[in-house]
Amino acid sequence: MKFDLVIHNAVIVTVNPDFDIIKNGTVCIKDGVIHSVRQGGKDKAPCPSCEYIDAAGGIVMPGLVNAHTHLPMSLFRGLADDLALSEWLNDHIFPAEGRHISPETVRAGTILSCLEMLLSGTTTCCDGYFFEDEVAEMMFLSGIRAVAGQGVIDFPAPGVPDPSRNIDVAVEFVEKWRHRSPLVTPSIFCHSPYTCSAQTLKTAKQAADRLGVLFQIHVAETKSEREQSLAATGMTPVAYLDSLGVLDENTLAIHAVWVDETDMDILARRNVKIAHVPESNMKLAAGISPVHRMLEMGLMMGLGTDGCASNNNLDLFGEMDMAAKLHKVTAGDPTVMNARTVVRMATIGGARAIGLGDVIGSLEPGKQADIIIIDTRKPHLTPLYHPESHLVYSVQGADVRDVLVAGLALVRDYRPVFLDADEIRGEAAEIGARIKQSG
Amino acid sequence: MKFDLVIHNAVIVTVNPDFDIIKNGTVCIKDGVIHSVRQGGKDKAPCPSCEYIDAAGGIVMPGLVNAHTHLPMSLFRGLADDLALSEWLNDHIFPAEGRHISPETVRAGTILSCLEMLLSGTTTCCDGYFFEDEVAEMMFLSGIRAVAGQGVIDFPAPGVPDPSRNIDVAVEFVEKWRHRSPLVTPSIFCHSPYTCSAQTLKTAKQAADRLGVLFQIHVAETKSEREQSLAATGMTPVAYLDSLGVLDENTLAIHAVWVDETDMDILARRNVKIAHVPESNMKLAAGISPVHRMLEMGLMMGLGTDGCASNNNLDLFGEMDMAAKLHKVTAGDPTVMNARTVVRMATIGGARAIGLGDVIGSLEPGKQADIIIIDTRKPHLTPLYHPESHLVYSVQGADVRDVLVAGLALVRDYRPVFLDADEIRGEAAEIGARIKQSG
Repeated sequence: MKFDLVIHNAVIVTVNPDFDIIKNGTVCIKDGVIHSVRQGGKDKAPCPSCEYIDAAGGIVMPGLVNAHTHLPMSLFRGLADDLALSEWLNDHIFPAEGRHISPETVRAGTILSCLEMLLSGTTTCCDGYFFEDEVAEMMFLSGIRAVAGQGVIDFPAPGVPDPSRNIDVAVEFVEKWRHRSPLVTPSIFCHSPYTCSAQTLKTAKQAADRLGVLFQIHVAETKSEREQSLAATGMTPVAYLDSLGVLDENTLAIHAVWVDETDMDILARRNVKIAHVPESNMKLAAGISPVHRMLEMGLMMGLGTDGCASNNNLDLFGEMDMAAKLHKVTAGDPTVMNARTVVRMATIGGARAIGLGDVIGSLEPGKQADIIIIDTRKPHLTPLYHPESHLVYSVQGADVRDVLVAGLALVRDYRPVFLDADEIRGEAAEIGARIKQSG
Repeated sequence: MKFDLVIHNAVIVTVNPDFDIIKNGTVCIKDGVIHSVRQGGKDKAPCPSCEYIDAAGGIVMPGLVNAHTHLPMSLFRGLADDLALSEWLNDHIFPAEGRHISPETVRAGTILSCLEMLLSGTTTCCDGYFFEDEVAEMMFLSGIRAVAGQGVIDFPAPGVPDPSRNIDVAVEFVEKWRHRSPLVTPSIFCHSPYTCSAQTLKTAKQAADRLGVLFQIHVAETKSEREQSLAATGMTPVAYLDSLGVLDENTLAIHAVWVDETDMDILARRNVKIAHVPESNMKLAAGISPVHRMLEMGLMMGLGTDGCASNNNLDLFGEMDMAAKLHKVTAGDPTVMNARTVVRMATIGGARAIGLGDVIGSLEPGKQADIIIIDTRKPHLTPLYHPESHLVYSVQGADVRDVLVAGLALVRDYRPVFLDADEIRGEAAEIGARIKQSG
């Protein structure tokens, strides 16, 4: 058979249900889809029309899935750190957003983030922000796979000065993008139970269901959110959302830090998907999500970085390392969150969490060829005993050599194939200079 | 004046007492020593005999100081993870050490680690292991700056089959290396209060004092160590060591996880130096050191990675990120362990902790020219608002472009100048294959 692309000489971490790892393996790709994943080198009689990529003994794995981003916020990377949450938000991030977020800056921040993600091995992200139509355009242009969520909040927001139109704007966005691209899938992103009214939450969820798209929402991020919810509604944030009927298998609950056993039971019964965002939760001192317990309960979880303003990068390899170590020390048990669990969370777990579990997240025949190649010929990746261990504890984003989305190479030999990195950086740096000047 | 080397077009993070950051700065170096650190570009009439390095607007800072390593253990990187501490040690690490640690493998593992450290911006480490003479030889060969501690333990150990000779071997090592190299400083490394008798600890410390070298010891790493100490001696590990008279300003206490207020008070009064090792403590689920409290008490702390078997890398940039975030979320306060505090810990704090505070750790006239240049022209480092924020939250080891130790460039344009990376990796990989085969 003739393939479009054959990746050979690879240590393949399939992330299939058995977590098979294939030494000296080959992946064959046809029409952007994985045709086969097999033991052995390339055929002795190579097909002349196939393109061959020699993985040079490196690790070949599914592209990483970032389950929670705010892509345009890369423009605020490192603008304000080490501050109390309210000061950080009210004195720095909200004013900067108010002054500087426009269609132009959203495009610049998004394309910068897409470039950063691709270069560090992330092939899919699940985003929520405003001017999401601009975000989606830039995702589309970058070639990355994504779920793009138009933000809904009951305050004037960038691009939505009149909050009474917030759901209309989101619905228009979803309708525009529903059949536009096989790679960019629209979604509705309600900011949180404390910034959206009960009516807004219910209407937005009904719209998402009617349109058949993912409903995203920040839930139970901070202790004060939980306390305020209890004071205002007599219910925890999770119980409150459940009482509104917005929790089901097409809802992605982001953060889920301050959740008790009853909350987790609700989330599990409703088959709600979870985006775990450890670095942001740590950096803002929001708290530590009971991830180990949620996994025990069978909840489906992805791993996310959050926006760059609270991380301050989009590197999921660092996020995997952080997640594994945080939960080991918190549990007092080094066996929890083992390397395979964490790799699953950053690939197939995230894919399932955002509704793409049948499409991506593992290297299996019939799935989309979203594939990354990690160059292991580095001092910090030598020796190599267990590939999954390296992926969590040793690999950095900068070790990703090649990146394919739907069979198309977007990064080759550490360089973007289509994007102009200097131009993208230059534009973001200029906007950064303006943001800095305005104080 | 004629300089040997001029680094210009730099954002200089001096880490001097005022933490001055100089935009468009220049560092002039003469005879391996920093002559000046100043605002402005290179002179209009450049000296023909000077070498100029254009930092290209990148961050120039003191080389990082890794306050705790076991360099040869890079050979065991990822050999066994996600296991209970006792199983990890007794079923994997100790047997592997027993079977495979020899002068040959120690040399191979050490040079691999030196290469990894240099490539990721670490210019000084403080090590403790066995066959430390071989370790020191490889440090010397690599050009890195180091404190090398010969291990002392009351069991048969690699190179010290007869434990009754453990202190003699350490003293011989110190005497051999005391005046051998300006870069490699010998030390005595007692493994721990639970693996060395009171007599061994006292004699080793007296020898270290007589020879004028640093005394290193693992202290209060795990809860069970603390409990066993209380059961056996009626004292905490710190109080026990204090009762033996081994705690003073020339002692480096490694880990200091399970320390209470009284312990910390002892450490502060004795001016004991601390090596904080967060990633290893997290990965082994040892616990969380009360670092924030120790800093409040004025204790001098460095940051270390520990050996590669429990980390699994030697990248201090990742360690900074982890340390900052861990202590924020643990304290429930995002203002603790701010970026400057963490950068200090990984530079001047570590330098002071290992007895080199007057020599390295900051970019100030008269100090050794141990300098790294970080290439900030990357998507994940754009925009740049606050250099110290990037150093902790965004930079990875792979962003280090150039590395100087005592004014000599050991890494230029991401490549080692003198070391043969392929040969070093190849040898380590071969040893890794033998280790894997032996099970």
